[in-house]
Amino acid sequence: MNQATHDDLADTALRGAGLCQLLHWLASGRITAERVTDTYLAAIARENTALNAYLATDPEKSRAQARAAGARRASGGPIGRLDGVPVAFKDNIDVAGWVTTAGLPRRRQAVASTDAACVARLLAAGAVVLGKTNLDEGVLGAATRNPHYGTTPNPWKEGHIAGGSSGGSAVAVAAGLCAVAVGSDSLGSVRIPASHCGIYAIKPTHGEISTRGLVPAARRLDTIGLMARNVDDLTILLQVLAGYDIDDPRSRKRRVAFAPPDWEPGKLRSGTLPNLARLGTAPEVVEVFENALVTLRHELGERQAVNFEDYPIERARRAGLLLMEAEMLGTYAADLADPAAPISADLKRLLDYAAARSAHDYVQADKMLDASVLKARRIFTQVDVLITPTTPACAAAIDAVEPADQALFTSFPSLSGCPAVSIPMGRSSTGLPLGLQFIGPPGSDLRLLELAEVCAAALDAAPDYPARR
Amino acid sequence: MNQATHDDLADTALRGAGLCQLLHWLASGRITAERVTDTYLAAIARENTALNAYLATDPEKSRAQARAAGARRASGGPIGRLDGVPVAFKDNIDVAGWVTTAGLPRRRQAVASTDAACVARLLAAGAVVLGKTNLDEGVLGAATRNPHYGTTPNPWKEGHIAGGSSGGSAVAVAAGLCAVAVGSDSLGSVRIPASHCGIYAIKPTHGEISTRGLVPAARRLDTIGLMARNVDDLTILLQVLAGYDIDDPRSRKRRVAFAPPDWEPGKLRSGTLPNLARLGTAPEVVEVFENALVTLRHELGERQAVNFEDYPIERARRAGLLLMEAEMLGTYAADLADPAAPISADLKRLLDYAAARSAHDYVQADKMLDASVLKARRIFTQVDVLITPTTPACAAAIDAVEPADQALFTSFPSLSGCPAVSIPMGRSSTGLPLGLQFIGPPGSDLRLLELAEVCAAALDAAPDYPARR
Repeated sequence: MNQATHDDLADTALRGAGLCQLLHWLASGRITAERVTDTYLAAIARENTALNAYLATDPEKSRAQARAAGARRASGGPIGRLDGVPVAFKDNIDVAGWVTTAGLPRRRQAVASTDAACVARLLAAGAVVLGKTNLDEGVLGAATRNPHYGTTPNPWKEGHIAGGSSGGSAVAVAAGLCAVAVGSDSLGSVRIPASHCGIYAIKPTHGEISTRGLVPAARRLDTIGLMARNVDDLTILLQVLAGYDIDDPRSRKRRVAFAPPDWEPGKLRSGTLPNLARLGTAPEVVEVFENALVTLRHELGERQAVNFEDYPIERARRAGLLLMEAEMLGTYAADLADPAAPISADLKRLLDYAAARSAHDYVQADKMLDASVLKARRIFTQVDVLITPTTPACAAAIDAVEPADQALFTSFPSLSGCPAVSIPMGRSSTGLPLGLQFIGPPGSDLRLLELAEVCAAALDAAPDYPARR
Repeated sequence: MNQATHDDLADTALRGAGLCQLLHWLASGRITAERVTDTYLAAIARENTALNAYLATDPEKSRAQARAAGARRASGGPIGRLDGVPVAFKDNIDVAGWVTTAGLPRRRQAVASTDAACVARLLAAGAVVLGKTNLDEGVLGAATRNPHYGTTPNPWKEGHIAGGSSGGSAVAVAAGLCAVAVGSDSLGSVRIPASHCGIYAIKPTHGEISTRGLVPAARRLDTIGLMARNVDDLTILLQVLAGYDIDDPRSRKRRVAFAPPDWEPGKLRSGTLPNLARLGTAPEVVEVFENALVTLRHELGERQAVNFEDYPIERARRAGLLLMEAEMLGTYAADLADPAAPISADLKRLLDYAAARSAHDYVQADKMLDASVLKARRIFTQVDVLITPTTPACAAAIDAVEPADQALFTSFPSLSGCPAVSIPMGRSSTGLPLGLQFIGPPGSDLRLLELAEVCAAALDAAPDYPARR
């Protein structure tokens, strides 16, 4: 079992397949775990120079894990839920024996000694580590234009950004350079690049997936985010990863139960924000969004306008950013102090800003968390789900100034701890994908995924992954 | 039913009675609600000048509530769980129509328009508001020596402090000036004065009782604390007050279930701290504590030393204090800015200290919450309950400098969100009461109370309340 078999499957079909398909092929013996990993590794070898999705791969290690998976299957013994599935990890998640850069120059040699909790769970389920993916410098950004490790461009339109900070993971998924990817999301970091790259992502209810082993950004916002080429894959990943971790203080033993959908067919109450344009949403995004709502008029049931007049959505986003930056002063203290591997002037400016803020300023920003929790509770007495565009604009040009408000719609679920799912909803006139965001109350993760699955089928808006090209 | 009846009960018996006794007398018709309230009001009128437990009473309002309770009972209609029970509230808890001073001079005229959530629940259960009790200036202290509203002295030893910041509530309970009292506890504010005044108190699991309508100190530490003359009364109050409040962002819908005791008799695993003296505990406290442990050798089951070497107990206390002070800069902004009603130089010094702290300092302090949660989780895999003295020293003399470490043992459950109960464990050689603290994992409130009840019976250490004099 140490040889890849020669099956009849086209590489593009394999690279574009979802988890269920992949697991079926593996279970039926049509393909081997080694073939899957080899196919992805070969694709990375060919395509990553242009895409810069991966910062690091280690074909030898990956192949060893794939061989072990193949041997487990061949032996007929017990296998994991994801046995032989190659997964990419954002490079702020520790994988034992791999460097964790967090996008910072000083950490080029920072080899992790322990697997992050999410990595350990996936490995225990039989997954194969395919590599570490690119991200914004210090995770602070939404463009994946890393001054030390390069830009990860948008795979659908030359010269445009992929979004961030989990841009490398998003592109790896979109370009068929992994089966699924694990990122992190504190204010929108998996949802924004998912929107720009035409893929699917979930930021789960805060505290549901352990963040132990994730380089912290802001502990009260940090979540492990999941990225895939369809909704089902997100559901599988979520169920493998969710669980109590005694060593993560944000993890809860008595958790909000993942509720299965309990909406009556046709009785769903969906909320939307009035005046998207006034909030700063680009006209082309409003247009694609309105078209999507028309397509989904049956799926989304009764539509209500949700009043956001009493919630300062833009101030909340900035408050969340301050919580991250202030905490990063401690997390990145050694990086800031090392003249041999200086951080960029841009990141230094952001952290200097935070360094000048007082404890009182921090408390005021932190109070936006309470305000967001209360706002979410009020919303979800009125509607079952809140629907927004994922991003207020299409992916910007790589050489343009990054728009400051990329996280305009993704911040609110982060600050309120609510789950949020992003699916492709269509394309701009210039061909850039755009995402539709579903937000639900804490614990409604499975409901949101079910609704997202139905809506994704109706929209059929995912761009062509390798399998469909 | 608008006249107090003349029953055969001595006032001292009534004033010292517990809730069950009081409710039995009320239900059997031996006494009326009016008689109960009148007796407490008369006692307050005679004794409060010396004790300064109450900052405000309103006999007319209290009598009207008592008359209404009497009428409800007389009519044979439905009555509340606490119908006719007079309750005292710490003066940082809003009662509609009453001033809330929070111990600050500017708030002498600050009439609350809405009942705090805990007040609303007690009123709905038929309770009578007896008055508002004294506290430290801005709730920041553990002595109840208020520069604007006077000192509340220890009722058991002249010239000594009552502890704080809920000192007025503690003395009202100890001196028989109310049936039970409601205070607040962020680092020990009900447990410390309970220890010094020889009464019983619980700081519940964080988030179990809504803090809406409490003047915030530090939202992640703030709890409504309960004070009574026996453990049963705490249990009754807790069950009336615990519940989800959609308008309190710290309140959880899916709460940790209050677990009934599930310890096997004789199989309890109790933890104690080694080296109490080295942590700064006064020799006489160590002596009373060790004697109590001998008395409770059967009740406390197997004893284990819990290692605190990896938890900076004193640094954690100071971190908690910074969280409070930094948040108070916002809460008390108007008080700080009003030259017509200046705060004391002492409070100003504490808040000036916090004003000079950075957002980074705040994050570092805030991280002690995570460390405390993790420490508590580790402890409660090893033992069922952690036992400490409530305070490291007896009540200080009123004219002495307040010891800084009053909250040495009470801070840890506050920072970790764990419930903690204090019961009288004996007296110092100078006659001052001392408390024993029981700490359990989140949600173990009822277990702790059951254990505390058994231990209280074995110790029989409560000083003579009015009924026993």
